[in-house]
Amino acid sequence: MSLLNETIARVQPPSGEHVRAAEQRQAILTKPLGSLGLLEELGCALSGMYAVCPPPESAPVAIAIFAGDHGVHRQGVTPWPQEVTGQMVGNFVGGGAVINAVARQVGADVVVVDVGVAADLPQAPGLLARKVARGTADLATGPAMTHEQVRAAADVGIEVATSLAQQGYRLLVAGDMGIANTTASAALVAVFTGHPPAEVTGRGTGIDDETFARKLAAIERALTERRVIAADPLEALAQVGGLEHAALAGYLIGAAATRTPVILDGIIACSAALVAQALAPNATAYWLAGHRSAEPGASAALAALGLHPLLDLGLRLGEGSGAALAVPLVQAAARVLREVGTFESAGVSHHIPTRF
Amino acid sequence: MSLLNETIARVQPPSGEHVRAAEQRQAILTKPLGSLGLLEELGCALSGMYAVCPPPESAPVAIAIFAGDHGVHRQGVTPWPQEVTGQMVGNFVGGGAVINAVARQVGADVVVVDVGVAADLPQAPGLLARKVARGTADLATGPAMTHEQVRAAADVGIEVATSLAQQGYRLLVAGDMGIANTTASAALVAVFTGHPPAEVTGRGTGIDDETFARKLAAIERALTERRVIAADPLEALAQVGGLEHAALAGYLIGAAATRTPVILDGIIACSAALVAQALAPNATAYWLAGHRSAEPGASAALAALGLHPLLDLGLRLGEGSGAALAVPLVQAAARVLREVGTFESAGVSHHIPTRF
Repeated sequence: MSLLNETIARVQPPSGEHVRAAEQRQAILTKPLGSLGLLEELGCALSGMYAVCPPPESAPVAIAIFAGDHGVHRQGVTPWPQEVTGQMVGNFVGGGAVINAVARQVGADVVVVDVGVAADLPQAPGLLARKVARGTADLATGPAMTHEQVRAAADVGIEVATSLAQQGYRLLVAGDMGIANTTASAALVAVFTGHPPAEVTGRGTGIDDETFARKLAAIERALTERRVIAADPLEALAQVGGLEHAALAGYLIGAAATRTPVILDGIIACSAALVAQALAPNATAYWLAGHRSAEPGASAALAALGLHPLLDLGLRLGEGSGAALAVPLVQAAARVLREVGTFESAGVSHHIPTRF
Repeated sequence: MSLLNETIARVQPPSGEHVRAAEQRQAILTKPLGSLGLLEELGCALSGMYAVCPPPESAPVAIAIFAGDHGVHRQGVTPWPQEVTGQMVGNFVGGGAVINAVARQVGADVVVVDVGVAADLPQAPGLLARKVARGTADLATGPAMTHEQVRAAADVGIEVATSLAQQGYRLLVAGDMGIANTTASAALVAVFTGHPPAEVTGRGTGIDDETFARKLAAIERALTERRVIAADPLEALAQVGGLEHAALAGYLIGAAATRTPVILDGIIACSAALVAQALAPNATAYWLAGHRSAEPGASAALAALGLHPLLDLGLRLGEGSGAALAVPLVQAAARVLREVGTFESAGVSHHIPTRF
């Protein structure tokens, strides 16, 4: 059995018993029941994922950034040169990118995984060299990857999630880097949600009308000229995905197999999650939506995943930044269940109001 | 000149020069311009408030919780007994409430200010005894406070903000506790936004239809039988406000006078902010909306304040909890401007895309 299939088989649904215990606990803490809105639901969900009530500290936190390049770059889908992918990996390991600043803010560690950068990258602390290929082929004109590449990249993601869980990380963030990767992401979202490409393709880093037209044309060409269907998730990845998408799909399933919650970032992680959900439906319960990206495809993906985002700040950076910003919210949801006193212990008169 | 008038006179608008410097800096950091959405605008705004670019650490953080009781409680506007206000103050100083858990999560200190609790409260570390009255009078049947009480409570808020700024706190959170205080808040929101009470009165802790009808009737009676107009903010506070509202208004103006940003919580802080804005229009620029409360009046108040909330999680607890949860976002916005490298320093190829 392959590592992917074996990992999928290990995914267990969250513990309903511990969700119910957390729900009962929410009702006796010193706050009106329901007054913490989504955070109460999140706290209960975390109890189910960790299979313990109250949930643990959700720390330490690791942010894995999967980096890869995209053959579709040659279609002129972005004004940013391809070498920026490798340059930004250097920025990540040097600590100078937005994700590093956010990671320091929320007390998270950053791991960068080269799963498919086109450039040769120097060794560096915090950089895992797991290059499966030097970027994908051009999805506009043929399959982006072979099935062997998809499997290998997914295995990288599984390996990273498993290793981080073994190192003691209790909360993971799914990040990405790859110039042109919103093109592959939009294609995947179109395939897995059934939306027309025009509805789920966005402006990524902020492209102009001509560039957007080329981006949309590349996706439409791929999806009309070739058979790309959600019923065969690995084939869909091979046709229009990216190496970081395959790795992220493995990472998301690998995290679920170790009962470790993962916070999704924007359209790249969300599109990979659609693939992972198709492969391992039980795994979805371990994923949290960090934010609603400005990319239209991200909202379509979140709806298909059944996830409600924690933040909605108009972010569209990637790197895992929007997900990392949500870390304190996740930790606070768990902390409330762990640390807040009960009406009885605090000597506060009790009233359970009608829910509304 | 009174302390309030003297403080209002000291409020200066944020520094436009430093806002522009921050905007220019956002364009050279290693991220597509605009890709951090609201956080970029927030970072620039913080530069203006602190009058320095990049903005400082926005730490340490203090959460001031102003507690008071409400005579309108006797109208049956809530099923919670009035003694819960004092009991929750005990819970705050004991560290067992939601706000304490959130404060520990975000690294903030909690100060509780008894500005009008009906009960006698034992001395405790972290509790400032500044009781102006043992609760307000019933706003349904007559003025809730005298003008002397309004002034005294506002002075308490100014004193607290000034003292916290002098102690070195660089970011403040506006919290509250007071059983029945959403009734006074909704009345203030109706007065200052012009919305009918029925549109801005909510269910607070989660009240049933009969209780809601009594709550709305109390507000409507006050606003129809007496002259309560936004043009006389202190008189409006005296008619339908609470001691914690008056203190919060002073706190918000006092913070602005020391160029210290304050994060607003839900409808109580937002309604107090409407009063403070009417008193000191320049002060509004120093206030951030932590979240969109589930209370309808909070959204009406935010619109009138011109503030976009950082979080929207269906919270309706108060205590400053929703504002405190937004602290890491504010700090991250400042940190990005401080810590992220430039395209030049990081050796990343540069492209400034069209804004969209």
